[in-house]
Amino acid sequence: MGRWKNAVVNPAEQRELRQDALYREAARAFRENGYHATSLENIAGALGISKPTLYHYVKTKGDLLFQIHMAASVQALASLCQEPGLNGLERLRRTVRDYTCSTVGDDSYSVVILEEKSLRPDQLAIVVRERDKFEAGLRGMIEDGMRDGSIVAGEPRFMVFNVLGAMNWVTKWYRRGRDWTIDEIGEGVAAFVCRALAPDGQPRSPGNRLFDPPGPRD
Amino acid sequence: MGRWKNAVVNPAEQRELRQDALYREAARAFRENGYHATSLENIAGALGISKPTLYHYVKTKGDLLFQIHMAASVQALASLCQEPGLNGLERLRRTVRDYTCSTVGDDSYSVVILEEKSLRPDQLAIVVRERDKFEAGLRGMIEDGMRDGSIVAGEPRFMVFNVLGAMNWVTKWYRRGRDWTIDEIGEGVAAFVCRALAPDGQPRSPGNRLFDPPGPRD
Repeated sequence: MGRWKNAVVNPAEQRELRQDALYREAARAFRENGYHATSLENIAGALGISKPTLYHYVKTKGDLLFQIHMAASVQALASLCQEPGLNGLERLRRTVRDYTCSTVGDDSYSVVILEEKSLRPDQLAIVVRERDKFEAGLRGMIEDGMRDGSIVAGEPRFMVFNVLGAMNWVTKWYRRGRDWTIDEIGEGVAAFVCRALAPDGQPRSPGNRLFDPPGPRD
Repeated sequence: MGRWKNAVVNPAEQRELRQDALYREAARAFRENGYHATSLENIAGALGISKPTLYHYVKTKGDLLFQIHMAASVQALASLCQEPGLNGLERLRRTVRDYTCSTVGDDSYSVVILEEKSLRPDQLAIVVRERDKFEAGLRGMIEDGMRDGSIVAGEPRFMVFNVLGAMNWVTKWYRRGRDWTIDEIGEGVAAFVCRALAPDGQPRSPGNRLFDPPGPRD
């Protein structure tokens, strides 16, 4: 362990960095092998630390799952585009792109595919409340888009479910789509969603390599 | 137990009907409560049978999960539209509608959200092979649509992943969307997907109550 490096980070920051590394490694292991098939020993091993050291950061696997869900919620809420002066569709497009990119790759805390019943009821209630905030943010953009004419009429809550499906499914297939970059995937899912939601004859979404690529005609 | 009713069904058919009821009840319990949180006792209880009776039909919870996956595969492959004379987009639209309807409601075997690692490696290999057949069917329609001009250019495999996300996520939110009928949900997801995949200026998909509803302007 590089002592000089430790010297420039205070102990509270150090603890937070380690905690973050732990959450990310656990999220990766849960995504790839499943929550039930992953033990705290597996996670400690992947981080190169002992199990007693791990216990300084988390008491049970259930608590770890809960903490990851909370970190993922913070990440999700941060992806909601607040940029002023944009129409609803464009704010949704940026949100879908940024959220999708954040759920794949090494920085992800995303464990959305997991069984919710693995959480304690009081923990699940908190996770659901945070998820509802994210869904309300998406719904608000869609409602704004319906008012400003950038999004077709319909049932906003139903549209949100469809958008979530396209975005959250990425964690399920990502390892089978390694031939595409994270940015391409984020832009591609955003294009899929925004093309669906734009009214007939209105601007839909810029194409990318995966979806409506700029061809020789351009 | 109505003896006269039993008399008109032969024992092999009877066994199959019971097996089917078992698979559907188990799929429902796994979807709603999670695979790990559901015991064979729970399933026997919900069916009003004893655990020894259940053992006549399935030996372990893992085998039950595998059998449900296989039944869901049959259901998925049956939803692939083979209708001649339709373009790729229209065949995809019917497939998405029928598949989505089949994954919700009482007849569903769908357990797609579950952790695949709960299956034995040899079982998982079979499930993956069946899943690949379904994905190949969807990909074929998309490629046909690209050739006949009903679907925009792009990466068919990426499009299939997006379509699967929108469809399979329904099992995750369905209980929160009980105010819509199964048919409305099927038509709505099909509209979402087909609107995304149709090229600019081409026919997209008929609207429905949830998505681009026929308004007073019609």
